[in-house]
Amino acid sequence: MENERLILVTNDDSVHAKGIHALVEMAKQFGRVVVVAPDKPQSGMGHAITIHDPIRLSSTAIFGEVEAYSCSGTPVDCVKLGIYEVLHRKPDLIFSGINHGENSSTNVLYSGTMSAAIEGAMEGIPSIGFSLADFDANADFSATQYFGAKIVQQLLDQPISSSVCLNVNVPKLTQSEIQGIQVCKQAHAYWADRFERRKDQHGRDYFWLTGEFSDVDQRPDTDLHALKNGFVSVVPTHFDLTAYETLERIKNWKI
Amino acid sequence: MENERLILVTNDDSVHAKGIHALVEMAKQFGRVVVVAPDKPQSGMGHAITIHDPIRLSSTAIFGEVEAYSCSGTPVDCVKLGIYEVLHRKPDLIFSGINHGENSSTNVLYSGTMSAAIEGAMEGIPSIGFSLADFDANADFSATQYFGAKIVQQLLDQPISSSVCLNVNVPKLTQSEIQGIQVCKQAHAYWADRFERRKDQHGRDYFWLTGEFSDVDQRPDTDLHALKNGFVSVVPTHFDLTAYETLERIKNWKI
Repeated sequence: MENERLILVTNDDSVHAKGIHALVEMAKQFGRVVVVAPDKPQSGMGHAITIHDPIRLSSTAIFGEVEAYSCSGTPVDCVKLGIYEVLHRKPDLIFSGINHGENSSTNVLYSGTMSAAIEGAMEGIPSIGFSLADFDANADFSATQYFGAKIVQQLLDQPISSSVCLNVNVPKLTQSEIQGIQVCKQAHAYWADRFERRKDQHGRDYFWLTGEFSDVDQRPDTDLHALKNGFVSVVPTHFDLTAYETLERIKNWKI
Repeated sequence: MENERLILVTNDDSVHAKGIHALVEMAKQFGRVVVVAPDKPQSGMGHAITIHDPIRLSSTAIFGEVEAYSCSGTPVDCVKLGIYEVLHRKPDLIFSGINHGENSSTNVLYSGTMSAAIEGAMEGIPSIGFSLADFDANADFSATQYFGAKIVQQLLDQPISSSVCLNVNVPKLTQSEIQGIQVCKQAHAYWADRFERRKDQHGRDYFWLTGEFSDVDQRPDTDLHALKNGFVSVVPTHFDLTAYETLERIKNWKI
Protein backbone atom coordinates (compact mmCIF):
# COMPACT_ATOMS: atom_id res chain seq x y z
CA MET A 1 0.00 0.00 0.00
CA GLU A 2 2.80 2.39 -0.94
CA ASN A 3 0.42 4.90 -2.43
CA GLU A 4 -1.99 4.76 0.44
CA ARG A 5 -3.40 8.17 1.36
CA LEU A 6 -1.86 9.57 4.54
CA ILE A 7 -4.17 11.46 6.90
CA LEU A 8 -3.07 13.54 9.88
CA VAL A 9 -5.78 13.86 12.54
CA THR A 10 -5.77 16.40 15.35
CA ASN A 11 -8.25 18.36 17.50
CA ASP A 12 -8.37 20.82 20.38
CA ASP A 13 -10.31 18.77 22.94
CA SER A 14 -7.32 16.40 23.48
CA VAL A 15 -6.65 12.75 22.66
CA HIS A 16 -9.07 11.81 25.44
CA ALA A 17 -12.14 13.35 23.83
CA LYS A 18 -14.78 11.14 22.25
CA GLY A 19 -14.90 13.41 19.19
CA ILE A 20 -11.41 12.64 17.93
CA HIS A 21 -12.00 8.91 18.35
CA ALA A 22 -15.13 9.24 16.21
CA LEU A 23 -13.13 11.19 13.63
CA VAL A 24 -10.38 8.56 13.50
CA GLU A 25 -13.00 5.87 12.90
CA MET A 26 -14.46 7.92 10.04
CA ALA A 27 -11.04 8.80 8.61
CA LYS A 28 -9.81 5.19 8.41
CA GLN A 29 -11.93 4.50 5.31
CA PHE A 30 -9.94 7.14 3.39
CA GLY A 31 -6.38 6.03 4.15
CA ARG A 32 -3.74 5.51 6.79
CA VAL A 33 -4.39 7.66 9.85
CA VAL A 34 -1.76 9.16 12.16
CA VAL A 35 -2.93 11.15 15.17
CA VAL A 36 -1.00 14.04 16.74
CA ALA A 37 -3.28 15.80 19.21
CA PRO A 38 -3.08 17.76 22.46
CA ASP A 39 -2.60 15.92 25.75
CA LYS A 40 -5.12 18.26 27.45
CA PRO A 41 -8.03 20.48 26.38
CA GLN A 42 -6.90 23.38 24.20
CA SER A 43 -10.26 24.94 23.34
CA GLY A 44 -10.14 28.62 22.59
CA MET A 45 -6.44 28.53 21.76
CA GLY A 46 -7.02 29.97 18.30
CA HIS A 47 -3.90 30.03 16.15
CA ALA A 48 -1.57 30.04 19.17
CA ILE A 49 1.86 28.43 18.84
CA THR A 50 4.25 27.55 21.66
CA ILE A 51 7.40 29.64 21.45
CA HIS A 52 8.27 30.37 25.09
CA ASP A 53 8.20 26.75 26.27
CA PRO A 54 9.53 23.44 25.03
CA ILE A 55 7.00 21.02 23.55
CA ARG A 56 6.66 17.34 24.49
CA LEU A 57 5.47 14.58 22.19
CA SER A 58 4.61 11.09 23.49
CA SER A 59 3.50 7.94 21.73
CA THR A 60 0.10 6.76 22.98
CA ALA A 61 -1.84 3.52 22.58
CA ILE A 62 -5.17 5.24 23.18
CA PHE A 63 -6.23 4.79 19.54
CA GLY A 64 -5.46 1.05 19.47
CA GLU A 65 -3.70 0.10 16.23
CA VAL A 66 -3.67 3.65 14.93
CA GLU A 67 -0.28 5.37 15.30
CA ALA A 68 -0.86 8.24 17.70
CA TYR A 69 0.99 10.88 19.70
CA SER A 70 -0.13 13.19 22.46
CA CYS A 71 1.48 16.61 22.44
CA SER A 72 1.87 19.21 25.17
CA GLY A 73 1.35 22.05 22.68
CA THR A 74 -1.52 23.74 20.92
CA PRO A 75 -3.51 22.35 17.96
CA VAL A 76 -1.34 24.38 15.55
CA ASP A 77 1.80 23.00 17.23
CA CYS A 78 0.34 19.51 16.65
CA VAL A 79 0.02 20.16 12.92
CA LYS A 80 3.57 21.53 12.68
CA LEU A 81 5.06 18.67 14.75
CA GLY A 82 2.93 16.15 12.87
CA ILE A 83 4.31 17.25 9.52
CA TYR A 84 7.92 18.00 10.43
CA GLU A 85 8.75 15.58 13.28
CA VAL A 86 6.34 12.66 12.99
CA LEU A 87 5.48 12.14 9.32
CA HIS A 88 8.53 13.93 7.89
CA ARG A 89 6.39 14.75 4.88
CA LYS A 90 3.15 16.57 4.15
CA PRO A 91 0.13 14.31 4.63
CA ASP A 92 -2.49 14.10 1.87
CA LEU A 93 -5.25 15.30 4.17
CA ILE A 94 -5.58 16.92 7.58
CA PHE A 95 -8.73 16.40 9.63
CA SER A 96 -9.36 18.30 12.86
CA GLY A 97 -12.07 17.53 15.40
CA ILE A 98 -14.70 16.37 15.82
CA ASN A 99 -15.06 19.33 18.13
CA HIS A 100 -17.43 19.11 21.08
CA GLY A 101 -19.25 22.37 20.34
CA GLU A 102 -19.97 24.57 17.34
CA ASN A 103 -17.29 26.54 15.52
CA SER A 104 -19.48 28.56 13.19
CA SER A 105 -19.44 32.31 12.58
CA THR A 106 -16.64 34.32 14.19
CA ASN A 107 -15.91 31.39 16.52
CA VAL A 108 -13.60 30.23 13.74
CA LEU A 109 -11.07 32.78 15.06
CA TYR A 110 -11.03 31.42 18.62
CA SER A 111 -11.23 27.79 17.63
CA GLY A 112 -8.20 25.56 18.04
CA THR A 113 -9.97 22.98 15.89
CA MET A 114 -10.30 25.34 12.94
CA SER A 115 -6.88 26.93 13.45
CA ALA A 116 -5.35 23.48 12.96
CA ALA A 117 -7.22 23.19 9.65
CA ILE A 118 -6.15 26.71 8.66
CA GLU A 119 -2.54 25.80 9.46
CA GLY A 120 -3.00 22.85 7.11
CA ALA A 121 -4.17 25.23 4.39
CA MET A 122 -1.11 27.41 5.04
CA GLU A 123 0.97 24.31 4.32
CA GLY A 124 -1.02 23.71 1.12
CA ILE A 125 -2.65 20.53 2.44
CA PRO A 126 -6.38 19.85 1.91
CA SER A 127 -7.77 20.24 5.43
CA ILE A 128 -11.15 20.04 7.12
CA GLY A 129 -12.28 21.03 10.59
CA PHE A 130 -15.35 19.19 11.91
CA SER A 131 -17.51 20.43 14.78
CA LEU A 132 -20.74 19.21 16.33
CA ALA A 133 -23.08 21.68 18.05
CA ASP A 134 -23.08 19.64 21.26
CA PHE A 135 -20.70 20.27 24.17
CA ASP A 136 -21.59 16.99 25.88
CA ALA A 137 -18.53 14.82 26.55
CA ASN A 138 -20.64 11.85 25.50
CA ALA A 139 -22.24 13.47 22.44
CA ASP A 140 -23.47 11.30 19.55
CA PHE A 141 -21.05 11.80 16.64
CA SER A 142 -22.67 9.34 14.22
CA ALA A 143 -24.42 11.98 12.09
CA THR A 144 -21.17 13.97 11.89
CA GLN A 145 -19.34 10.85 10.79
CA TYR A 146 -21.98 10.18 8.11
CA PHE A 147 -22.12 13.70 6.64
CA GLY A 148 -18.41 14.27 7.27
CA ALA A 149 -17.52 11.27 5.11
CA LYS A 150 -19.74 12.61 2.30
CA ILE A 151 -17.93 15.95 2.42
CA VAL A 152 -14.50 14.28 2.39
CA GLN A 153 -15.51 12.21 -0.63
CA GLN A 154 -16.76 15.33 -2.41
CA LEU A 155 -13.47 17.12 -1.70
CA LEU A 156 -11.52 14.14 -3.07
CA ASP A 157 -13.73 14.01 -6.18
CA GLN A 158 -13.62 17.75 -6.82
CA PRO A 159 -10.56 19.26 -5.15
CA ILE A 160 -10.52 22.96 -4.28
CA SER A 161 -7.57 25.32 -3.88
CA SER A 162 -5.15 23.75 -1.41
CA SER A 163 -4.85 27.10 0.37
CA VAL A 164 -8.53 26.88 1.35
CA CYS A 165 -9.77 24.58 4.10
CA LEU A 166 -13.33 23.66 5.03
CA ASN A 167 -15.14 24.57 8.23
CA VAL A 168 -17.82 21.90 8.71
CA ASN A 169 -20.43 22.34 11.46
CA VAL A 170 -23.16 19.85 12.24
CA PRO A 171 -26.35 20.71 14.13
CA LYS A 172 -27.35 18.69 17.18
CA LEU A 173 -29.81 16.50 15.32
CA THR A 174 -30.06 12.87 14.30
CA GLN A 175 -28.92 11.83 10.83
CA SER A 176 -32.50 11.59 9.58
CA GLU A 177 -33.46 14.96 11.04
CA ILE A 178 -30.62 16.76 9.23
CA GLN A 179 -31.90 18.55 6.12
CA GLY A 180 -28.72 18.25 4.05
CA ILE A 181 -25.47 20.10 3.46
CA GLN A 182 -25.13 23.81 2.63
CA VAL A 183 -22.00 25.56 1.41
CA CYS A 184 -22.15 29.06 2.91
CA LYS A 185 -20.29 32.05 4.28
CA GLN A 186 -19.08 32.81 7.80
CA ALA A 187 -21.75 34.74 9.74
CA HIS A 188 -20.76 38.03 11.37
CA ALA A 189 -22.12 37.27 14.80
CA TYR A 190 -20.15 38.00 17.95
CA TRP A 191 -19.88 37.29 21.65
CA ALA A 192 -21.32 39.87 24.02
CA ASP A 193 -18.62 39.07 26.52
CA ARG A 194 -19.14 39.21 30.21
CA PHE A 195 -16.93 38.04 33.02
CA GLU A 196 -17.92 36.39 36.21
CA ARG A 197 -16.02 38.14 38.99
CA ARG A 198 -15.23 35.99 42.04
CA LYS A 199 -13.07 36.39 45.12
CA ASP A 200 -10.34 33.93 46.09
CA GLN A 201 -9.52 32.81 49.64
CA HIS A 202 -7.45 36.00 50.12
CA GLY A 203 -10.27 38.27 48.99
CA ARG A 204 -8.63 39.05 45.66
CA ASP A 205 -10.69 39.23 42.49
CA TYR A 206 -10.43 36.79 39.65
CA PHE A 207 -12.48 36.43 36.49
CA TRP A 208 -14.03 33.67 34.43
CA LEU A 209 -14.81 34.46 30.82
CA THR A 210 -18.46 33.91 30.00
CA GLY A 211 -20.78 35.68 27.57
CA GLU A 212 -23.72 35.39 25.28
CA PHE A 213 -23.57 34.75 21.60
CA SER A 214 -25.25 37.53 19.71
CA ASP A 215 -26.43 36.59 16.25
CA VAL A 216 -26.89 39.95 14.58
CA ASP A 217 -26.31 38.65 11.07
CA GLN A 218 -29.66 38.12 9.36
CA ARG A 219 -28.32 37.12 5.94
CA PRO A 220 -29.77 33.83 4.65
CA ASP A 221 -26.54 32.38 3.24
CA THR A 222 -24.47 32.10 6.42
CA ASP A 223 -23.33 29.10 8.44
CA LEU A 224 -25.45 30.16 11.42
CA HIS A 225 -28.53 30.34 9.22
CA ALA A 226 -27.85 26.91 7.75
CA LEU A 227 -27.39 25.35 11.20
CA LYS A 228 -30.54 26.97 12.55
CA ASN A 229 -32.45 25.43 9.68
CA GLY A 230 -31.13 21.94 10.30
CA PHE A 231 -28.38 21.86 7.66
CA VAL A 232 -24.73 20.90 7.95
CA SER A 233 -22.75 24.07 7.12
CA VAL A 234 -19.56 24.05 5.03
CA VAL A 235 -17.59 27.32 4.90
CA PRO A 236 -14.55 27.46 2.60
CA THR A 237 -12.03 29.22 4.82
CA HIS A 238 -8.71 30.87 4.03
CA PHE A 239 -5.90 32.69 5.81
CA ASP A 240 -5.84 35.94 3.85
CA LEU A 241 -7.28 38.49 6.29
CA THR A 242 -6.90 41.41 3.85
CA ALA A 243 -10.11 43.47 3.77
CA TYR A 244 -10.05 43.95 -0.02
CA GLU A 245 -13.01 46.34 -0.23
CA THR A 246 -11.39 48.67 2.26
CA LEU A 247 -8.04 48.23 0.51
CA GLU A 248 -9.57 49.48 -2.74
CA ARG A 249 -10.95 52.54 -0.98
CA ILE A 250 -7.84 53.54 0.96
CA LYS A 251 -4.98 52.35 -1.23
CA ASN A 252 -4.35 55.89 -2.41
CA TRP A 253 -4.30 57.40 1.07
CA LYS A 254 -1.88 60.33 0.94
CA ILE A 255 -0.21 60.28 4.31
CA MET B 1 -12.95 66.87 29.17
CA GLU B 2 -16.14 64.81 29.08
CA ASN B 3 -15.85 64.20 25.39
CA GLU B 4 -12.22 63.28 25.49
CA ARG B 5 -11.34 60.38 23.24
CA LEU B 6 -10.79 57.13 25.15
CA ILE B 7 -8.01 54.84 23.93
CA LEU B 8 -7.40 51.27 25.12
CA VAL B 9 -3.79 50.16 24.67
CA THR B 10 -2.59 46.56 24.79
CA ASN B 11 0.16 44.38 23.31
CA ASP B 12 1.53 40.85 23.46
CA ASP B 13 5.04 41.51 24.75
CA SER B 14 3.71 42.45 28.24
CA VAL B 15 3.51 45.68 30.23
CA HIS B 16 7.27 45.44 30.75
CA ALA B 17 8.18 45.78 27.07
CA LYS B 18 9.65 49.02 25.76
CA GLY B 19 7.29 48.92 22.76
CA ILE B 20 4.07 49.44 24.72
CA HIS B 21 5.61 52.34 26.62
CA ALA B 22 6.51 53.96 23.30
CA LEU B 23 2.95 53.36 22.08
CA VAL B 24 1.42 54.92 25.20
CA GLU B 25 3.59 58.02 24.69
CA MET B 26 2.41 58.28 21.09
CA ALA B 27 -1.23 57.58 21.99
CA LYS B 28 -1.45 60.33 24.64
CA GLN B 29 -1.69 63.06 21.99
CA PHE B 30 -4.97 61.54 20.76
CA GLY B 31 -6.88 61.23 24.04
CA ARG B 32 -7.04 59.57 27.44
CA VAL B 33 -5.12 56.32 27.50
CA VAL B 34 -5.94 53.25 29.58
CA VAL B 35 -3.63 50.24 29.40
CA VAL B 36 -4.72 46.63 29.88
CA ALA B 37 -1.86 44.37 28.81
CA PRO B 38 -0.40 40.95 29.62
CA ASP B 39 1.76 40.50 32.72
CA LYS B 40 4.16 38.26 30.79
CA PRO B 41 5.14 37.73 27.14
CA GLN B 42 2.27 36.35 25.06
CA SER B 43 3.87 36.32 21.62
CA GLY B 44 2.47 33.74 19.25
CA MET B 45 -0.79 33.43 21.19
CA GLY B 46 -2.85 34.33 18.13
CA HIS B 47 -6.53 34.76 18.91
CA ALA B 48 -6.37 32.57 22.03
CA ILE B 49 -8.76 33.25 24.90
CA THR B 50 -8.55 31.86 28.43
CA ILE B 51 -11.48 29.59 29.16
CA HIS B 52 -10.00 26.80 31.30
CA ASP B 53 -8.38 29.08 33.89
CA PRO B 54 -9.41 32.11 35.87
CA ILE B 55 -7.92 35.45 34.80
CA ARG B 56 -6.24 37.96 37.12
CA LEU B 57 -6.18 41.72 36.61
CA SER B 58 -3.93 43.99 38.72
CA SER B 59 -3.51 47.74 38.79
CA THR B 60 0.06 48.77 37.96
CA ALA B 61 1.98 52.04 38.32
CA ILE B 62 4.43 51.09 35.60
CA PHE B 63 3.02 53.70 33.20
CA GLY B 64 3.24 56.55 35.70
CA GLU B 65 0.11 58.71 35.57
CA VAL B 66 -1.54 56.57 32.91
CA GLU B 67 -4.20 54.21 34.31
CA ALA B 68 -2.90 50.71 33.68
CA TYR B 69 -3.61 47.06 34.48
CA SER B 70 -1.55 43.95 34.00
CA CYS B 71 -3.52 40.85 33.12
CA SER B 72 -2.68 37.16 33.44
CA GLY B 73 -4.51 36.39 30.19
CA THR B 74 -3.88 36.64 26.47
CA PRO B 75 -3.95 39.83 24.37
CA VAL B 76 -7.54 39.04 23.32
CA ASP B 77 -8.49 38.52 26.98
CA CYS B 78 -6.99 41.97 27.67
CA VAL B 79 -9.27 43.58 25.07
CA LYS B 80 -12.35 41.81 26.44
CA LEU B 81 -11.51 42.63 30.07
CA GLY B 82 -10.57 46.18 29.13
CA ILE B 83 -13.94 46.82 27.54
CA TYR B 84 -16.21 44.90 29.91
CA GLU B 85 -14.48 45.08 33.31
CA VAL B 86 -12.21 48.13 33.23
CA LEU B 87 -13.78 50.76 30.98
CA HIS B 88 -17.34 49.42 31.13
CA ARG B 89 -17.85 50.91 27.70
CA LYS B 90 -16.32 50.59 24.26
CA PRO B 91 -13.27 52.82 23.85
CA ASP B 92 -13.03 55.09 20.81
CA LEU B 93 -9.81 53.48 19.66
CA ILE B 94 -7.76 50.39 20.41
CA PHE B 95 -4.01 50.40 19.81
CA SER B 96 -1.93 47.23 20.13
CA GLY B 97 1.86 47.07 20.20
CA ILE B 98 4.34 48.36 19.42
CA ASN B 99 5.41 44.79 18.82
CA HIS B 100 9.06 43.87 19.05
CA GLY B 101 9.21 42.07 15.70
CA GLU B 102 7.36 42.11 12.40
CA ASN B 103 3.77 40.93 12.02
CA SER B 104 3.46 41.10 8.26
CA SER B 105 2.21 38.41 5.89
CA THR B 106 0.70 35.26 7.43
CA ASN B 107 2.30 36.17 10.77
CA VAL B 108 -0.91 38.10 11.36
CA LEU B 109 -2.53 34.77 12.27
CA TYR B 110 -0.01 33.87 14.99
CA SER B 111 0.34 37.40 16.34
CA GLY B 112 -1.16 38.27 19.70
CA THR B 113 -0.63 41.93 18.83
CA MET B 114 -2.77 41.72 15.71
CA SER B 115 -5.34 39.40 17.28
CA ALA B 116 -6.01 42.10 19.88
CA ALA B 117 -6.65 44.57 17.05
CA ILE B 118 -8.87 42.05 15.24
CA GLU B 119 -10.83 41.53 18.46
CA GLY B 120 -11.31 45.30 18.52
CA ALA B 121 -12.70 45.15 14.99
CA MET B 122 -15.05 42.35 16.06
CA GLU B 123 -16.35 44.77 18.70
CA GLY B 124 -16.77 47.47 16.04
CA ILE B 125 -14.00 49.66 17.47
CA PRO B 126 -11.40 51.34 15.20
CA SER B 127 -8.24 49.41 16.02
CA ILE B 128 -4.62 49.40 14.91
CA GLY B 129 -1.81 46.94 15.55
CA PHE B 130 1.71 48.39 15.33
CA SER B 131 4.85 46.31 14.85
CA LEU B 132 8.50 47.18 14.32
CA ALA B 133 10.76 44.76 12.42
CA ASP B 134 13.24 44.63 15.28
CA PHE B 135 13.18 41.99 18.01
CA ASP B 136 15.67 43.88 20.19
CA ALA B 137 14.31 44.56 23.69
CA ASN B 138 15.88 48.01 23.44
CA ALA B 139 14.76 48.74 19.86
CA ASP B 140 14.34 52.36 18.71
CA PHE B 141 10.60 53.01 18.37
CA SER B 142 10.81 56.68 17.39
CA ALA B 143 10.17 56.14 13.66
CA THR B 144 7.20 53.90 14.51
CA GLN B 145 5.83 56.62 16.79
CA TYR B 146 6.24 59.20 14.04
CA PHE B 147 4.63 57.24 11.20
CA GLY B 148 2.13 55.60 13.59
CA ALA B 149 0.79 58.99 14.63
CA LYS B 150 0.35 59.97 10.97
CA ILE B 151 -1.66 56.81 10.32
CA VAL B 152 -3.83 57.38 13.40
CA GLN B 153 -4.55 60.95 12.26
CA GLN B 154 -5.45 59.71 8.77
CA LEU B 155 -7.84 57.12 10.26
CA LEU B 156 -9.48 59.83 12.39
CA ASP B 157 -9.80 62.17 9.38
CA GLN B 158 -11.11 59.47 7.03
CA PRO B 159 -12.66 56.64 9.04
CA ILE B 160 -12.96 53.19 7.51
CA SER B 161 -15.43 50.41 8.28
CA SER B 162 -15.32 49.76 12.02
CA SER B 163 -15.16 46.03 11.34
CA VAL B 164 -11.78 46.49 9.67
CA CYS B 165 -8.58 47.11 11.64
CA LEU B 166 -5.15 48.14 10.40
CA ASN B 167 -1.98 46.05 10.50
CA VAL B 168 0.91 48.53 10.54
CA ASN B 169 4.47 47.26 10.15
CA VAL B 170 7.55 49.46 10.21
CA PRO B 171 10.92 48.45 8.75
CA LYS B 172 14.05 48.61 10.89
CA LEU B 173 15.20 51.95 9.51
CA THR B 174 15.55 55.48 10.80
CA GLN B 175 12.74 57.96 10.21
CA SER B 176 14.65 59.66 7.39
CA GLU B 177 15.53 56.35 5.72
CA ILE B 178 11.88 55.26 5.54
CA GLN B 179 10.45 55.83 2.06
CA GLY B 180 6.85 56.50 3.12
CA ILE B 181 3.66 54.59 3.83
CA GLN B 182 2.04 51.99 1.55
CA VAL B 183 -1.45 50.55 1.90
CA CYS B 184 -1.17 46.97 0.70
CA LYS B 185 -2.36 43.37 0.98
CA GLN B 186 -1.21 40.55 3.24
CA ALA B 187 1.57 38.54 1.55
CA HIS B 188 1.12 34.78 1.23
CA ALA B 189 4.48 33.81 2.67
CA TYR B 190 4.85 31.03 5.23
CA TRP B 191 7.14 29.49 7.81
CA ALA B 192 9.12 26.44 6.76
CA ASP B 193 8.88 25.09 10.29
CA ARG B 194 11.56 23.07 11.88
CA PHE B 195 11.94 21.95 15.46
CA GLU B 196 15.09 21.73 17.48
CA ARG B 197 15.04 18.38 19.24
CA ARG B 198 16.87 18.24 22.58
CA LYS B 199 17.12 15.73 25.41
CA ASP B 200 16.27 16.55 29.02
CA GLN B 201 18.18 15.29 32.08
CA HIS B 202 16.22 12.01 31.90
CA GLY B 203 17.08 11.44 28.24
CA ARG B 204 13.58 12.29 27.05
CA ASP B 205 13.06 14.37 23.91
CA TYR B 206 11.62 17.84 23.87
CA PHE B 207 11.21 20.32 21.05
CA TRP B 208 11.68 24.02 20.47
CA LEU B 209 9.79 25.55 17.56
CA THR B 210 12.09 27.27 15.11
CA GLY B 211 11.88 27.72 11.36
CA GLU B 212 12.70 29.88 8.40
CA PHE B 213 10.40 32.40 6.86
CA SER B 214 9.84 31.59 3.22
CA ASP B 215 8.74 34.51 1.11
CA VAL B 216 7.26 32.83 -1.95
CA ASP B 217 4.89 35.69 -2.78
CA GLN B 218 6.43 37.81 -5.54
CA ARG B 219 3.49 40.21 -5.99
CA PRO B 220 4.49 43.89 -5.81
CA ASP B 221 1.53 45.09 -3.73
CA THR B 222 2.07 43.10 -0.52
CA ASP B 223 3.19 44.15 2.93
CA LEU B 224 6.40 42.14 2.64
CA HIS B 225 7.25 43.89 -0.62
CA ALA B 226 6.59 47.31 0.92
CA LEU B 227 8.78 46.54 3.94
CA LYS B 228 11.61 45.20 1.79
CA ASN B 229 11.57 48.47 -0.13
CA GLY B 230 11.76 50.62 2.97
CA PHE B 231 8.07 51.53 3.30
CA VAL B 232 5.77 51.31 6.30
CA SER B 233 3.05 48.78 5.35
CA VAL B 234 -0.62 49.22 6.25
CA VAL B 235 -2.90 46.24 5.62
CA PRO B 236 -6.64 46.70 6.21
CA THR B 237 -7.50 43.48 8.06
CA HIS B 238 -10.84 41.84 8.81
CA PHE B 239 -12.20 38.77 10.55
CA ASP B 240 -14.21 37.23 7.74
CA LEU B 241 -12.19 34.16 6.74
CA THR B 242 -14.67 33.07 4.06
CA ALA B 243 -12.82 32.18 0.85
CA TYR B 244 -15.36 33.87 -1.43
CA GLU B 245 -13.84 32.74 -4.74
CA THR B 246 -13.99 29.13 -3.65
CA LEU B 247 -17.48 29.69 -2.23
CA GLU B 248 -18.68 30.81 -5.67
CA ARG B 249 -17.20 27.70 -7.26
CA ILE B 250 -18.53 25.15 -4.78
CA LYS B 251 -21.76 26.64 -3.51
CA ASN B 252 -23.78 24.30 -5.69
CA TRP B 253 -21.96 21.16 -4.61
CA LYS B 254 -24.46 18.35 -4.77
CA ILE B 255 -23.55 16.14 -1.87
